[in-house]
Amino acid sequence: MQKFILTLLSAATISAIIAYTPTISTVQAKETNAAIKKVFDAKSYMLDNGLQIVVVENHRAPVITHMIWYRAGAADEPRGQSGIAHFLEHLLFKGQKHKVLGDLSPGEFSRIVRSLGGEDNAFTSQDYTAYYQSIASEHLEKVMRMEAGRMRGIDIPLSEFASENKVIQEERRQRTDNDPRAQMAEQMTEALFPNHPYGIPVIGWMHEIQALEWADAKKFYDQYYAPNNAILIVSGDVKGEEVLAIAKRTYGIIKRAKTPARKRTTSPPFISQTSVTLAHESIKEPQFRRTYRVPSHRQDAQASLTLEILESIIGGSSTSRFYKSLVIKQKLATNISLSYNSSAWNDATLSIVATPVSVDKMDALQDAIDRELRKIVMDGVTDQELSDTISRMQGEAIYARDSLSGPAMVIGYNLITGATLDDIEYWPQRIETVTNKHIQDIAKTYLNPDQPYTTPYVNGFLLPKNSRGNMK
Amino acid sequence: MQKFILTLLSAATISAIIAYTPTISTVQAKETNAAIKKVFDAKSYMLDNGLQIVVVENHRAPVITHMIWYRAGAADEPRGQSGIAHFLEHLLFKGQKHKVLGDLSPGEFSRIVRSLGGEDNAFTSQDYTAYYQSIASEHLEKVMRMEAGRMRGIDIPLSEFASENKVIQEERRQRTDNDPRAQMAEQMTEALFPNHPYGIPVIGWMHEIQALEWADAKKFYDQYYAPNNAILIVSGDVKGEEVLAIAKRTYGIIKRAKTPARKRTTSPPFISQTSVTLAHESIKEPQFRRTYRVPSHRQDAQASLTLEILESIIGGSSTSRFYKSLVIKQKLATNISLSYNSSAWNDATLSIVATPVSVDKMDALQDAIDRELRKIVMDGVTDQELSDTISRMQGEAIYARDSLSGPAMVIGYNLITGATLDDIEYWPQRIETVTNKHIQDIAKTYLNPDQPYTTPYVNGFLLPKNSRGNMK
Repeated sequence: MQKFILTLLSAATISAIIAYTPTISTVQAKETNAAIKKVFDAKSYMLDNGLQIVVVENHRAPVITHMIWYRAGAADEPRGQSGIAHFLEHLLFKGQKHKVLGDLSPGEFSRIVRSLGGEDNAFTSQDYTAYYQSIASEHLEKVMRMEAGRMRGIDIPLSEFASENKVIQEERRQRTDNDPRAQMAEQMTEALFPNHPYGIPVIGWMHEIQALEWADAKKFYDQYYAPNNAILIVSGDVKGEEVLAIAKRTYGIIKRAKTPARKRTTSPPFISQTSVTLAHESIKEPQFRRTYRVPSHRQDAQASLTLEILESIIGGSSTSRFYKSLVIKQKLATNISLSYNSSAWNDATLSIVATPVSVDKMDALQDAIDRELRKIVMDGVTDQELSDTISRMQGEAIYARDSLSGPAMVIGYNLITGATLDDIEYWPQRIETVTNKHIQDIAKTYLNPDQPYTTPYVNGFLLPKNSRGNMK
Repeated sequence: MQKFILTLLSAATISAIIAYTPTISTVQAKETNAAIKKVFDAKSYMLDNGLQIVVVENHRAPVITHMIWYRAGAADEPRGQSGIAHFLEHLLFKGQKHKVLGDLSPGEFSRIVRSLGGEDNAFTSQDYTAYYQSIASEHLEKVMRMEAGRMRGIDIPLSEFASENKVIQEERRQRTDNDPRAQMAEQMTEALFPNHPYGIPVIGWMHEIQALEWADAKKFYDQYYAPNNAILIVSGDVKGEEVLAIAKRTYGIIKRAKTPARKRTTSPPFISQTSVTLAHESIKEPQFRRTYRVPSHRQDAQASLTLEILESIIGGSSTSRFYKSLVIKQKLATNISLSYNSSAWNDATLSIVATPVSVDKMDALQDAIDRELRKIVMDGVTDQELSDTISRMQGEAIYARDSLSGPAMVIGYNLITGATLDDIEYWPQRIETVTNKHIQDIAKTYLNPDQPYTTPYVNGFLLPKNSRGNMK
């Protein structure tokens, strides 16, 4: 399951996310033993049309965050139409028409939210697209009405379609094509997910973005934007029953639609090891990356909880194993991190990113990383490391509860990728079930350097221009 | 255009071809100046239903080769159904029904051909599927009648579908999964063709082969097996007008069908360099492979003719540049070859395969290959090399004419991948138009080692088990 740390939103898999900065409270929670309590104590409802509703009440300030999550992401796009999910996310701000819920002209949705002192935005990933507003509680019905209106009522001038296509092309240029690190991540993901839609970037390939047509976008919209394919989450200063009542008046009038079952092609077994090298003049210092395919929470909850703990022990911070050994002690790298993102419908990824002290140390760095991984395969971790890590992660969950908008986000990406509300509420208790044996087994299965071809991973070498000679 | 050398059929792109060994005459042709004559002097016809017919008369022996080529290959398969084109190729031997042309039970087609002293088979590539019989001329109408009957009349027992699925699984095991060299080629092709169907093997991924259903196979068959999507080629002891008359009585009664236009997804630009490493216990000596994406004849005829000549000069044999320099002189490799296959609907490939004298020499070998390529970028080739090569290739074309079954094959895979009959007939004259400047330009554009990321290529390292430590 996705951890309660929101900075993960900057991960490459959520390439299209824009300017979402939830407020994490700095107030220390009074209760630190989470052994029996639910994290959010969320209320859950279901409308007749299939819309799932989750409410997290928090009355510390008179504001709410209202989010709608669709089970429709880039990995659901037809082949050859990459970028269409993200394009649609943009287009939903460009006009809507609905007999009961009202009409909005291009840009009017956001103008209204801002005029009421709120902010709104949206983001797209491989598995979902989400829209949100943070605003004073009194305006909740207003934003719910507008959001419900664009669930089935998209209605945009064709000129907006053409000009917005230019906007997403420019977005791709700025975020990916002008950034060798992003290019590298894109190339590695492509190599890591052959024959699987996760290998295609969320933003889309440029030549396919340019060829997108309105009819295709509309078809995707009609198939996937429906109450029975969405989750509504409201957190903040509002009662659950109030949200339910407003939802009935707004989303409740939208009809169920026939949404296609997810049917994604899958990768063949990994039998070889792939490396991607990218040399670029704007790169001043080399970078080593390695990305593994590992289980997501939906695929294997126990493995996923174990990987979350392992992430923290090996690579979460400057006190974790990698940093202490490779940066401080061995002085092979100036920086190293390991991150795991559990919230995916299909396979999740675990990434190592390191800056070697020089290109010449690239091989030694890889060997040293392998040695650290081998240690865990052979000996596991210490009981102290394990219990300290679990306590710290439980503490972070407690803080998350006090945030105003954070809960909507955390609950959203976990539910939409297949977790249950209980998985989220009892996460602090569940990570306590992870043992040293679990950790050793997971390292053996997925991170064992001496058994590299059964574990799918891709190595990446990002280099200053003309240093390629060293990297044959 | 595909050269007149039939051994190329063993190339990885035609992975499903079976036991086709055309007889190449060893009789020296009397005329070696091909400047004005057509190579085959083939006759060409078209039926009202859209079936194209090509006949090459050769009365040296009372036998014919009869081939039907469909514009339907693995790259035309729906995503997630890899292997269906090849599976269908097998299924077409398993029974057919046609009111006028007759019925055949499973296996009866081949039994009849063999009982008449002939042989038959079929093969599948990314762009086409072809069926053929070589048999005494007197039986031509018989085989044409049977072949026409299975163009639209497939009718197989479901038990045959299930058992033949096991057969193609076994074929994949034997040809690919039990052969690390074939696995390597498959992995490299996958990396070389991201987001393009050529990245998927013709035989299919095992997990997708296992999931194929009869309804899907039948749909593919109904869409692509039609006279207007096929080319009929007959070579041997028969007159063109005779073939036409029989074709009218057999293929002529089949109706045109609505065949979908080819619409294939394309790869994004190459911005990084990908390497694939495979270590396997059955590998005793290491191998270095590099495969480039280059123009096919259909995409750029002049570039393709130039690449054919360059292939011969650099890597065609033990007298070509690579062998003389890297094997004989520098002793870095025990073997090296370069091959180019021009007959593809989309991009073609050019492959270098070398056996270094040891794993330690892998880097030096790559550097030496790059040096040879750089020489051609800088200085081109000598006039003598160029004229000798063109003369030799023209000579090979002359021999091809005297073969009994070879012409049907050569004409088939060139026409079916977009060449015209004139491209084939006047090939000896056309390669004479290639100049040293063409060669230098093509090397600069596609094979320049100092500009590696604009030219898509993938490096492959096939290694004995446990030697991976050297190949970081």
